[in-house]
Amino acid sequence: MKASQFFISTLKEAPADAEVVSHKLMMRAGMIKKLGAGIYTLMPMGLRVVQKVEAIVREEMNRAGAVELCMPVVQPAELWQETGRFDKMGPELLRIQDRHAHDFVIQPTSEEVVTDIARQEIRSYKQLPKNFYQIQTKFRDERRPRFGLMRGREFIMKDAYSFDRDQVSAKASYQIMAKAYRRIFDRFGLTYRAVAADSGAIGGDLSEEFQVIAATGEDAIVYCPGSNYAANMEKAEALAPAGPRPAASQAMAKTPTPGQSTCADVAELLGLPLAQTVKSLVLATDTLNEQGEVVKTQVWLLLLRGDHDMNEVKVGKLPGLGAFRFATVPEIEDHFGCKPGYLGPLNLLKPVKLVVDREVAVMNDWVCGANEVDFHLTGVNWGRDLPEPDMVADLRNVVAGDASPDGQGVLAIERGIEVGHVFYLGTKYSEAMKATFLDQNGKPQFMEMGCYGIGITRLPAAAIEQNHDERGIIWPDALAPFTVVLCPINAERSPEVKATAEALYAELLAAGVDVMLDDRGERPGAMFADWELIGVPHRVNIGDRALKEGNVEYQYRRDAAASAVPVADIVAQLLAKLKV
Amino acid sequence: MKASQFFISTLKEAPADAEVVSHKLMMRAGMIKKLGAGIYTLMPMGLRVVQKVEAIVREEMNRAGAVELCMPVVQPAELWQETGRFDKMGPELLRIQDRHAHDFVIQPTSEEVVTDIARQEIRSYKQLPKNFYQIQTKFRDERRPRFGLMRGREFIMKDAYSFDRDQVSAKASYQIMAKAYRRIFDRFGLTYRAVAADSGAIGGDLSEEFQVIAATGEDAIVYCPGSNYAANMEKAEALAPAGPRPAASQAMAKTPTPGQSTCADVAELLGLPLAQTVKSLVLATDTLNEQGEVVKTQVWLLLLRGDHDMNEVKVGKLPGLGAFRFATVPEIEDHFGCKPGYLGPLNLLKPVKLVVDREVAVMNDWVCGANEVDFHLTGVNWGRDLPEPDMVADLRNVVAGDASPDGQGVLAIERGIEVGHVFYLGTKYSEAMKATFLDQNGKPQFMEMGCYGIGITRLPAAAIEQNHDERGIIWPDALAPFTVVLCPINAERSPEVKATAEALYAELLAAGVDVMLDDRGERPGAMFADWELIGVPHRVNIGDRALKEGNVEYQYRRDAAASAVPVADIVAQLLAKLKV
Repeated sequence: MKASQFFISTLKEAPADAEVVSHKLMMRAGMIKKLGAGIYTLMPMGLRVVQKVEAIVREEMNRAGAVELCMPVVQPAELWQETGRFDKMGPELLRIQDRHAHDFVIQPTSEEVVTDIARQEIRSYKQLPKNFYQIQTKFRDERRPRFGLMRGREFIMKDAYSFDRDQVSAKASYQIMAKAYRRIFDRFGLTYRAVAADSGAIGGDLSEEFQVIAATGEDAIVYCPGSNYAANMEKAEALAPAGPRPAASQAMAKTPTPGQSTCADVAELLGLPLAQTVKSLVLATDTLNEQGEVVKTQVWLLLLRGDHDMNEVKVGKLPGLGAFRFATVPEIEDHFGCKPGYLGPLNLLKPVKLVVDREVAVMNDWVCGANEVDFHLTGVNWGRDLPEPDMVADLRNVVAGDASPDGQGVLAIERGIEVGHVFYLGTKYSEAMKATFLDQNGKPQFMEMGCYGIGITRLPAAAIEQNHDERGIIWPDALAPFTVVLCPINAERSPEVKATAEALYAELLAAGVDVMLDDRGERPGAMFADWELIGVPHRVNIGDRALKEGNVEYQYRRDAAASAVPVADIVAQLLAKLKV
Repeated sequence: MKASQFFISTLKEAPADAEVVSHKLMMRAGMIKKLGAGIYTLMPMGLRVVQKVEAIVREEMNRAGAVELCMPVVQPAELWQETGRFDKMGPELLRIQDRHAHDFVIQPTSEEVVTDIARQEIRSYKQLPKNFYQIQTKFRDERRPRFGLMRGREFIMKDAYSFDRDQVSAKASYQIMAKAYRRIFDRFGLTYRAVAADSGAIGGDLSEEFQVIAATGEDAIVYCPGSNYAANMEKAEALAPAGPRPAASQAMAKTPTPGQSTCADVAELLGLPLAQTVKSLVLATDTLNEQGEVVKTQVWLLLLRGDHDMNEVKVGKLPGLGAFRFATVPEIEDHFGCKPGYLGPLNLLKPVKLVVDREVAVMNDWVCGANEVDFHLTGVNWGRDLPEPDMVADLRNVVAGDASPDGQGVLAIERGIEVGHVFYLGTKYSEAMKATFLDQNGKPQFMEMGCYGIGITRLPAAAIEQNHDERGIIWPDALAPFTVVLCPINAERSPEVKATAEALYAELLAAGVDVMLDDRGERPGAMFADWELIGVPHRVNIGDRALKEGNVEYQYRRDAAASAVPVADIVAQLLAKLKV
């Protein structure tokens, strides 16, 4: 491609609403253009990157035996009503009506449509397993779209759905996809981790997120540097403390802590480590009658160490807490006789269920609220000052330095951007939509399903968060809009420069290299700055001075300086370097 | 691709709602699956065809210097309000609201968005010309979607938009696109015509439709077998009759024609040729005041020969008739003193403007309504019986046998399916949206635009309407989902058949052929029927009997019989035949 036949539009400054670096750089490099909140045109330079992502994903999905189809963007509501998602999903599901006032949705994913296809098309176990995928436009009406392509409303996703005859086969299909995903992200040339994720009510460990590692990532990733263990924060288990509970060494005392309502403030006031304090979280669960009215409310008190945070996913899996909510202030005052900030497990007005994190269960001499404003209790001890709790469980997020669940060392935490997810669905959708097949005995069985997504338009943004410097983007070869850019310097004044550039361009094109010849006639400084901003990994500068010595200049985007390379050698050297 | 790794789903019978052959065959061949009215999933077999269409279109658009981008499917209403299309377009424009009750549309085309991009990005004449295109999902909420992909609601279109500094350059851009379109349709291997189309208010001849010729086509195409002349029915000119008006030879007479209100009935009753009769059409135009109220209505009488049909596009271009409507019955009775069926230009109650087709203007001794129920006038002659008309013009559709406007013979008419359109837009959108650039003198000028569409998902349907037989689809090589299919016969009982099939498969794959190996183990009859239905152009049957002689069977989809080809020669023979 020659620049004069393409469309290059770079900006010195990013627009004010671009907060994260990938958004800023994609706007500045002219890769995307905002049309509305969370809605972007993929400009020619950005579309090239997206098409490279698509091509690699398509190749690897095909290699893994998945079959491509293309489901509609606009989908009738009926199928979504069958699974209940039409009503259950929030306003992020864009609902529309056609001219006949029939309800439709714009697909955010396509479980319903693909399950409808499967239940019509797959009649026998002989047709299984089958994996259908599409690369297609999706829409989620995010409340607060932001960060450019990172959290847009309209986006392109690759979504795949596997159908199997039983769990064993479904798990094999899942593993085939997980392997294909590793190959895909390897080919992208990105640093990533496949992390275990929570698989919801289904249980098992068949849910993994593919996270591109970046300091700016939204997600906390837990991993063990000494092993293969990796999980997202929701999933990572905090192991039970190793030793037994130390004996009490202090007497319990009521201590004035005026105005100090957080564990950190109390610890500082009392000169104690934060890990000596215990925080109280009050939850509630409601029992409903058949009319959906609340007939009974149970209040729960959760205790966590002052330096730990509650993990809502873990808490939601505890018996009785599946549908927990945070208690209201009147509910708290009714049970504790005190407003939030000074709560604790002693001297309650009404009984509550007491659920305690495993760390708290082995603490001695701890500090908690006294259920009296401006007072805390110190030297509290289990058994002596209050009875043992109703339940002891893992309630918290892990922190760096916790023991790894696989026993291979301690955990570290880094940030990541989720760009893929593989998930074993079981029969959730096939039961809701009565998607059955006939097994070997001619008996109808629900299909076992899995779903597998890759954020096609999110991926370039994640790649940039991981690969950039103060001058701009640094694309891995596989994702670059152009792999090589040729920059002739003052070509209009030098026929030799022009001829050499054209000859190298023709030679690289013929070798199948995705090469750009910048024939815009820009000054060298502006030209180099453009290509460093756009992030083309390999640049060749062709100028009169070096040509006199028979050389051109090769500049690798990650290197500080360019190097002189004989004109005769540059193509061979480039071909040797290119990893695509 | 092996059948076992693909998804093949054929039907014996087409669903009842499939009316046209392409719809029936695409459903039966498992290429599309209906999700709702006018909304289809592209199944794996159909998607392959669509992707081949896309690839050829993309290649030729790039070759022609157009630059690909991708505009959003969901577009904010603001831009559509700027051009007035948000209000002017009917319910076929799908309007939606997001969670914040902001108005959006689903793109039916993208003139507004691309003009918005151009007005922001293109500042100088130096950046022109530029042509942006996309291949993207569109939606038109058709009142009556039908014929499968032929008139769906959701569809894929390639839409391109050119921007130029002046009309000369815009016309050159138009010609580049028209040439690219010819190359595209040539590569598809379809019989088509580029026909001149009406270019609306802009005038000139810079509007062409690309019509795939098919007996079942919706559009009438006018062409001259002896020349290059081709136009659609709206556009094709009916030349003025060659000779002068013959002199009157009959006296005018009022003749009873009880109950005979059509020209055909009257001609039959009177024993006259239909071409001797004249039909009366009554139109009206309204003059509005600033409040949009009708302050004056002009009634027009149009006369056409009894065997001719009015061409509304031609009539709409006549002075004063730009916004014509058909007159109401009260308006007709008020002016003619008679109800429709017996109208004519004589004995009016109130004056009307008389507009006469060029054929009628040179008739003598003609027949028309007497403005009295159950009576017609015969032997009517211009000048003698009524004054010359206010206007003589081309008001009618051409008919087969009319003289060709280029003087090269007579016109013929055939049917076509519109699959592409190139159109010079002028400054319609750039003026509405103030899309200007600075010219050589630093003066802002409106950009000259053109738009160019290809119905990507419609094209396979049109190809089938043109290429099918009683057994199924007959794809041109370039569009076939697979170019070659290998059909091993009873492979499970013959290791030699299986080995030969696998060897040919590997060889063809290595040669870059899009080959399908049918390893499903179906009986030969069912297997052959499937591939004839699906329409793969080249089939190789590998069976024990022929193998004993060292042969396989080659079956070209269009041929009645297969031919024996030595195993050793089949790959070379196939490669020689393939036109892709």
